[in-house]
Amino acid sequence: MTTDVEGREYAYTVADYLLDRMAECGIRHLFGVPGDFTLGFLDHVERHPLIAWVGTANELGAAYAADGYARLAGLGALSTTFGVGELSALAGVAGSSAEHVPVLHLVGAPTIATQSARRATHHTLGDGDFDHFSRMTAEVTVAQGRPTADGYAAEIDRVIVAARDRRLPGYLLLAADVAEAPASPPSAPLPSHPGVTTAEAASAFRSALTSRLASARSLAVLADILVSRVGAEEHLHRLLGLGVPHATLLWGRRVVDESADAYLGSYLGAASETAVRTVIEDSDLLVLAGVQFTDLTSGFFSQRIEPARTIELRGEYAAIAGQRFEPLAMADALDILTDAVRTADEKLFLVRPGGGADQPAPLALSPDAPLGQAALWSEVTAFLRAGDIVLADQGTSFYGMAGHRLPSGVTLIGQPLWAAIGFTLPALLGAALARPDRRPVLLIGDGAAQLTSAELGTILRHDIPAVIVVVDNGGYTVERAIHGLQEQYNDIARWDWTALTRAMDAAGTATAVRVTTNGHLHRALADARDADTLTLIQAVVPPLDVPPVLRAVAAAASSANRPG
Amino acid sequence: MTTDVEGREYAYTVADYLLDRMAECGIRHLFGVPGDFTLGFLDHVERHPLIAWVGTANELGAAYAADGYARLAGLGALSTTFGVGELSALAGVAGSSAEHVPVLHLVGAPTIATQSARRATHHTLGDGDFDHFSRMTAEVTVAQGRPTADGYAAEIDRVIVAARDRRLPGYLLLAADVAEAPASPPSAPLPSHPGVTTAEAASAFRSALTSRLASARSLAVLADILVSRVGAEEHLHRLLGLGVPHATLLWGRRVVDESADAYLGSYLGAASETAVRTVIEDSDLLVLAGVQFTDLTSGFFSQRIEPARTIELRGEYAAIAGQRFEPLAMADALDILTDAVRTADEKLFLVRPGGGADQPAPLALSPDAPLGQAALWSEVTAFLRAGDIVLADQGTSFYGMAGHRLPSGVTLIGQPLWAAIGFTLPALLGAALARPDRRPVLLIGDGAAQLTSAELGTILRHDIPAVIVVVDNGGYTVERAIHGLQEQYNDIARWDWTALTRAMDAAGTATAVRVTTNGHLHRALADARDADTLTLIQAVVPPLDVPPVLRAVAAAASSANRPG
Repeated sequence: MTTDVEGREYAYTVADYLLDRMAECGIRHLFGVPGDFTLGFLDHVERHPLIAWVGTANELGAAYAADGYARLAGLGALSTTFGVGELSALAGVAGSSAEHVPVLHLVGAPTIATQSARRATHHTLGDGDFDHFSRMTAEVTVAQGRPTADGYAAEIDRVIVAARDRRLPGYLLLAADVAEAPASPPSAPLPSHPGVTTAEAASAFRSALTSRLASARSLAVLADILVSRVGAEEHLHRLLGLGVPHATLLWGRRVVDESADAYLGSYLGAASETAVRTVIEDSDLLVLAGVQFTDLTSGFFSQRIEPARTIELRGEYAAIAGQRFEPLAMADALDILTDAVRTADEKLFLVRPGGGADQPAPLALSPDAPLGQAALWSEVTAFLRAGDIVLADQGTSFYGMAGHRLPSGVTLIGQPLWAAIGFTLPALLGAALARPDRRPVLLIGDGAAQLTSAELGTILRHDIPAVIVVVDNGGYTVERAIHGLQEQYNDIARWDWTALTRAMDAAGTATAVRVTTNGHLHRALADARDADTLTLIQAVVPPLDVPPVLRAVAAAASSANRPG
Repeated sequence: MTTDVEGREYAYTVADYLLDRMAECGIRHLFGVPGDFTLGFLDHVERHPLIAWVGTANELGAAYAADGYARLAGLGALSTTFGVGELSALAGVAGSSAEHVPVLHLVGAPTIATQSARRATHHTLGDGDFDHFSRMTAEVTVAQGRPTADGYAAEIDRVIVAARDRRLPGYLLLAADVAEAPASPPSAPLPSHPGVTTAEAASAFRSALTSRLASARSLAVLADILVSRVGAEEHLHRLLGLGVPHATLLWGRRVVDESADAYLGSYLGAASETAVRTVIEDSDLLVLAGVQFTDLTSGFFSQRIEPARTIELRGEYAAIAGQRFEPLAMADALDILTDAVRTADEKLFLVRPGGGADQPAPLALSPDAPLGQAALWSEVTAFLRAGDIVLADQGTSFYGMAGHRLPSGVTLIGQPLWAAIGFTLPALLGAALARPDRRPVLLIGDGAAQLTSAELGTILRHDIPAVIVVVDNGGYTVERAIHGLQEQYNDIARWDWTALTRAMDAAGTATAVRVTTNGHLHRALADARDADTLTLIQAVVPPLDVPPVLRAVAAAASSANRPG
């Protein structure tokens, strides 16, 4: 027996064991939609002292919210019902897999007896095969488990540890009766992540590095998202703090402080600004820290990086000009590199940032002029402050912000590999609940926002004081830029987003305004600066107005889709 | 070369071949969301003389709309982009599989060259494996195809014919370059469905049936959804037209005329009304026409059907007391049965419907009394007229209507096996476009409607004169009935559905009203009767008010989810 928050006794079950393990990993919110196979489990969630239930409008929203939560809290979780529920979440879970975000997907299943009888049960295909959906999920999760009344502890621990340590989604199929089976609380903490590095590998890397640095006249760093995924951000910051010129890929914008003097800007292969490209491609030595080149972040693989002058740091190895040193954790490799650079300091910093990377002064804007993309992103950037969590949806928002430096202490959330439009709106829900001390700012197009619009209601229900900019340009401008500039298939239904906000705002505390000029936008943002409730700004811009970075990326995408 | 609707010449490609084959099968609308891997294909859709593009707010909406379309048009189709798009639709495609609805899922993929290079491409997991998603889809589709520039015709034909003939979803992965490859139009029509029945099987069945009928004193028919799926409805109607007492499962409500004298009502195993149960379970002979017992339609398998007195008709065989006659198509078996019953008429019709199956007179309602579920479904039933397409979502709506006979010529769409709440709202879009001559009436709970609410905007964009009743009871009452009557996890965000309708109604032509009393509802329905634009009625009822049929089903579901 155990007791709930009000001191009432209840039987400790497998559900409680699972929840205790999740709480041990820092999970305080569980997202999802109830279903009859999960209702018993949810009773235990409601009783749990540390974990709160956050019902979402639909399962895809829950998956995206859990992803946003995990990006800030280290691990996220969602609960759905069998078949109908889990498959509705699957695109979100797959996105977490692509983007290396650790999320636990808990699925409530029919009882073991029902499954064994192979009957035509609701939420199944009716063919008696209860394994279709777990086979599907196995394609996009790092571990799958089916706890039983006897073997629950090892099975639950295995999946949670795999998701946590490999930073990928895990799947637990919990039959309704197993959730209610008697259990014992964990007797010991989960094993911590085993150390990776051996003294031999570290020593060999140090020697090779020292000798390589001795002949180098310049050094630069290109960093990307995997630094964050292996938790090596602070180690990277110590290296960059020495003044090493550096850039990131667009995927990795959150891993450095873009207000630093030595920050160059974003590297996008051939689509980069010249000043960035020169330093990254021409330095004597280039450190690739957790870099994965993807089509959209590399100008469709137009990067020019010579292996011979490259030091590559990955999760569990380092390589100098292709020679691998392993096992060697990225954090340890960064520390060794920092020591070596500090020693070699004098002769290394020959390459300094060019003039192109400074934040452009805010545009001089006529207040009465119609709003356009350039003014929009300039104003939004000026509005940001340290501590903000900025979610930029994979369209004109993400690429519009690509031309602007973020203030220090701002975390940018985007999804440039999986690139699912609409992701960021539910992700805001998760990110905001993970870090209620930070202001969430969402930048999203109208077409994208329609995909997941129902979660605006969930955000309002939880009184999240977000600032949301919906870019109203009548359709999928990111697609127009690639193909079909004027085609009807890139148009969408026109909504009044201010009225929509009010329709979902039961408490009546939100502010929603539609702006069409620079002056309107400026005032709306100024008002939002001091608001303690949600502000939604419907920013009307021309349908064919495209940020310059997106124009370059879109031209490459269009070319990649053509025959031959 | 071929010409578009305005007479402009363009090159005929694989995309055009696919579209021509779809049009040949009766498809006139293609649902979906554009993505950069589908944009070239969509150019051909826009040019096609017979097929119109219907952009939806998200991919799950497209899958549900295609399902609703297929239920009325015989075949439906959706187009999504690789990975992010197709997985978002997957729950809907799986539902079509469970419910035997033929839908083509067209997925736009990166070019063959990009796939071969195994690069970290957006909309993939970044691991170079481009087959994850087609393997996932294979679990829920009857056929999968990857047309190539050379082998497109046979591959496309194979998948379309399999989906059409087996009444299940099919999947076509169309690389962006293959869609644009030169092609030739079809040189011959698709093969028609091969005949099933052999003369020997038919003759043996006729003999055995005649002899079995000679010793029977009573006969009844229990019909279900598979009659519709194999296209045997008219053959069934000829048999029932002889006056044979009959019932359907809740899944099969659309296959008979519920206004007929010999119609008994719905059979739900132990949860049936006594008059229905007596006839179905006690007749000398019972014909099971296309019956699949599922947990929710059989009172959790509480049916009492003796095999010895059963004649079972399935898609490709018939069985008398377990003795199978095959291959024998259901339509042919029904015709043989009709002939035999007509001959044996005199002595068979000993069992007549009891008094319980007549439509209850509309409730005598006090206009000022607060609205409840009983009054709601009584009023809605009285509102229906011949030709209506009624979509009842799998919650209080579906079970509330279970207690009422439908007028002649009304088609009911529900989803009692897959049972995904929210399905019916996008399904209305598809059903309405398939049959613009019929009035669509949607009955849906507020929790369910939130799941797919964005497609209300698509319905409004297409000026569909639907009547939509949103049952506003503050949450998932279908789940409350099973478990968690007062638990917070069954609550949802509260929305103003009338304001939401206006926010999405760019043309400003819809009517949206909130009703709280019997009189309000009556007047709102009366106004809707003559409207030629959309009417949405937000019907406020108590959260714990549950229709009687749902109460019985929910008690059985709750019991099935308990251990042991």
